[in-house]
Amino acid sequence: MAKDKKVEQITDMEVDFAQWFTDVCTKAELVDYSGVKGLFIMRPYGYAIWENIMSYLDGRFKELGHENVSMPVLIPESLLQKEKDHVEGFAPECAWVTHGGSEELPERLCVRPTSETLFCDHWSHVVHSYRDLPMKYNQWCSVLRWEKTTRPFLRGREFLWQEGHTIHATEEEAREETLQMLEVYADCCEKVLAMPVIRGDKTEKEKFAGAVNTYTIECMMHDHKALQSGTSHFFGDGFTRAFNITFTDKENKLSFPYQTSWGMSTRVIGGLIMTHGDNNGLVLPPKVAPIQVIVVPVAQQKEGVLDKAYELLDRLKAAGIRARIDASSNSMGWKCAQWEMKGVPVRLEIGPRDIENNVCMAVRRDNGEKVTVGLEKLETMIPQVLDQVQQGLFDKAKENLDSHIFAASSVEEAKALQEEHGGFIKTMWCGDLACEEKMKEEAGMSSRCIPFDQENLGDTCPCCGKPAKHMIYWGIAY
Amino acid sequence: MAKDKKVEQITDMEVDFAQWFTDVCTKAELVDYSGVKGLFIMRPYGYAIWENIMSYLDGRFKELGHENVSMPVLIPESLLQKEKDHVEGFAPECAWVTHGGSEELPERLCVRPTSETLFCDHWSHVVHSYRDLPMKYNQWCSVLRWEKTTRPFLRGREFLWQEGHTIHATEEEAREETLQMLEVYADCCEKVLAMPVIRGDKTEKEKFAGAVNTYTIECMMHDHKALQSGTSHFFGDGFTRAFNITFTDKENKLSFPYQTSWGMSTRVIGGLIMTHGDNNGLVLPPKVAPIQVIVVPVAQQKEGVLDKAYELLDRLKAAGIRARIDASSNSMGWKCAQWEMKGVPVRLEIGPRDIENNVCMAVRRDNGEKVTVGLEKLETMIPQVLDQVQQGLFDKAKENLDSHIFAASSVEEAKALQEEHGGFIKTMWCGDLACEEKMKEEAGMSSRCIPFDQENLGDTCPCCGKPAKHMIYWGIAY
Repeated sequence: MAKDKKVEQITDMEVDFAQWFTDVCTKAELVDYSGVKGLFIMRPYGYAIWENIMSYLDGRFKELGHENVSMPVLIPESLLQKEKDHVEGFAPECAWVTHGGSEELPERLCVRPTSETLFCDHWSHVVHSYRDLPMKYNQWCSVLRWEKTTRPFLRGREFLWQEGHTIHATEEEAREETLQMLEVYADCCEKVLAMPVIRGDKTEKEKFAGAVNTYTIECMMHDHKALQSGTSHFFGDGFTRAFNITFTDKENKLSFPYQTSWGMSTRVIGGLIMTHGDNNGLVLPPKVAPIQVIVVPVAQQKEGVLDKAYELLDRLKAAGIRARIDASSNSMGWKCAQWEMKGVPVRLEIGPRDIENNVCMAVRRDNGEKVTVGLEKLETMIPQVLDQVQQGLFDKAKENLDSHIFAASSVEEAKALQEEHGGFIKTMWCGDLACEEKMKEEAGMSSRCIPFDQENLGDTCPCCGKPAKHMIYWGIAY
Repeated sequence: MAKDKKVEQITDMEVDFAQWFTDVCTKAELVDYSGVKGLFIMRPYGYAIWENIMSYLDGRFKELGHENVSMPVLIPESLLQKEKDHVEGFAPECAWVTHGGSEELPERLCVRPTSETLFCDHWSHVVHSYRDLPMKYNQWCSVLRWEKTTRPFLRGREFLWQEGHTIHATEEEAREETLQMLEVYADCCEKVLAMPVIRGDKTEKEKFAGAVNTYTIECMMHDHKALQSGTSHFFGDGFTRAFNITFTDKENKLSFPYQTSWGMSTRVIGGLIMTHGDNNGLVLPPKVAPIQVIVVPVAQQKEGVLDKAYELLDRLKAAGIRARIDASSNSMGWKCAQWEMKGVPVRLEIGPRDIENNVCMAVRRDNGEKVTVGLEKLETMIPQVLDQVQQGLFDKAKENLDSHIFAASSVEEAKALQEEHGGFIKTMWCGDLACEEKMKEEAGMSSRCIPFDQENLGDTCPCCGKPAKHMIYWGIAY
């Protein structure tokens, strides 16, 4: 259907993927730019997607026994400095509050870039006995990281996220927690956002500042670049020693507990856009779509059409479907283009001829397929169509991922494969930083993860020829 | 029942109400102090109360057509300065970010004390036509105000809140919105928090910086001081003119739209504590209590007691009641004192004799009353007992409010009444700032509001003798 000029055009993704992304963010009314570089406004439609993601994650967290808390937005510089690796990682990116009212502060305070130090300080007050453990906390908030280059969702100086922080009596329990929460993130990506993931360990170089292990889920975008979509960290007792958090264990001995943290942010909305979007705009999986079905009356000036359209709307809502109607005076072409731009999974058309035939027409956003739905089957068939869209999006993304993983046995081959196809290049690896840096310098790729699902591609590291320890994935990352 | 020493004692409220309040905040594990004065940690039990309040308010907001958004946490100084009255009110309390990473910023940024300026800046980008209006937005976030004296919940340099911001084509619609949202706050206080309110206008002196009208709900605490518990502001077109937000109206004429904003914060949790609490600690209305029923097995070492207690727990949960069990090895005395401290509305005791008699015992936290509940009636009777506690708390607070409003016809009389009884002193008032300041200087009271329910107490202002315009409430406020 021809586009009405009222729907602003977006750049084709094949022409300029970065510009296409920015166009979708603004034209689908997800974000607006504020007066400060890197601080974005999440408009109602963008925030509603985040609310659906929050609702899923918060439910999972609580089912697993986590409790929400609220930590302060400001961290004293001296507190941030208590754990050496941590401050080295974060201090260069901190935004600093130096004045309160008209007075200069005795110590500068950073706007939290992450809250490990705050949780540790609190736990040093309240953890005494093994009976107090575990404490499994989460908070929903925004954090600031003063990045140089910024893009909506993908890299903001401020972003919204949740940060889970837990403290346990034993290393085993903390390690289980770390992996369990990675699985929650994998479920969120795969089952809710329809984004297939690769699970694995981060290398020493790429892990979180202060962590013993960082686990990650990596997704592949439509342009075959990688997006780190959620991470979960095992801290050992490094922080609890630095903050002197001790507890009396069951044998009445004073011990240091073990910690984890894990986070997922509005970055995944960027991932969602770049995984499923197309040249007509956003494409949303039904499970996170603020509007799952848009009812569009055809020839709405004809008698009975609007009434029937509203009747269908009410029935969809009553069936628990997030439905809306576009009964505006805009043209049919405008409406189709507008709701395609906004990524609504199903457009439901109903016109005079449909009414005569006692049917309506469901149009899938993911593949344009039209499904004729008998009006009496509305409540059973529309959820099925929504499930098909959800599955269709996952399958398409999985196909994109699976077809863009390539094995290489030399740095040159890795580089050539990346240049020709993009995607993830898998090789063996000796585990040395030098080889990781070589791959970055010579092939332009960073390590994405050491996947949990290991394969034996050979015995030696393609960078240095020494014995290999792991199979590793390389890629170009957002 | 005698208190076990394991439950830490709190100061009696009659001895030192302020210390009693602080004791309850910490001993009931609502908050912890952070390393920065005035920035508090909301612990799981405190945050869970806020989650229940958020859930109620967010539901009401959305029913009324509001959408959530997220605005940046930082405001450029130049943006804050655009509306003259607004900046005068807030600039002295701002916390300023001056450095990002290692660089000094070209313009300092304040951590938002409130977000009117951000919403206006956004609306100046996206409001074009009457078709775009109204926009009815809300955000859940924290704000910073660099206060000198701070107390948990009541006055923090950081506090959590929601701030609603709406923009309308007509003054009439904006005024309706302002009053409608005040009613939502009144409902939240009265129906959820069991805190009766007085609705009214703030005086010129007390209104929000930049508002044409500020409406308020005022509550009375147990010590007969006042707590402003929610405010709703009508801005006229002052901000839209300052930010040059215009729209094309139905007559194709360029016009300035009208704005409102309204906020409720974690301050109401302070109000909750000071309205219902007693010398045994917190008392929570069932509608916001994180735990509505605590099941306490009596003589739990006896065969069958624990099984039966868990059975009751499961039945309560299945009936949608937020229930928990205390099957710890602590003494009965410790458990009773502990859950009283935490303000759980109903303690459900079940012991060997109860099991024989096929009953359990529900003990009300608000008045200590014991209710024998036949086990077969658990699911019907416990919700009734919870409703009785909710109503009982409201009635007690209403009685406290109603019995502490006194009419006065001179400043001296007002002062004497306040000194003898505390509470709200109502007088007539000419409307002049001078008289408002006189009441503050001579009787130590600020104006609380010009109540919507006006009474005629006389014809003249007790401060100056000139003709009276309104009846006004005075009080000592938190």
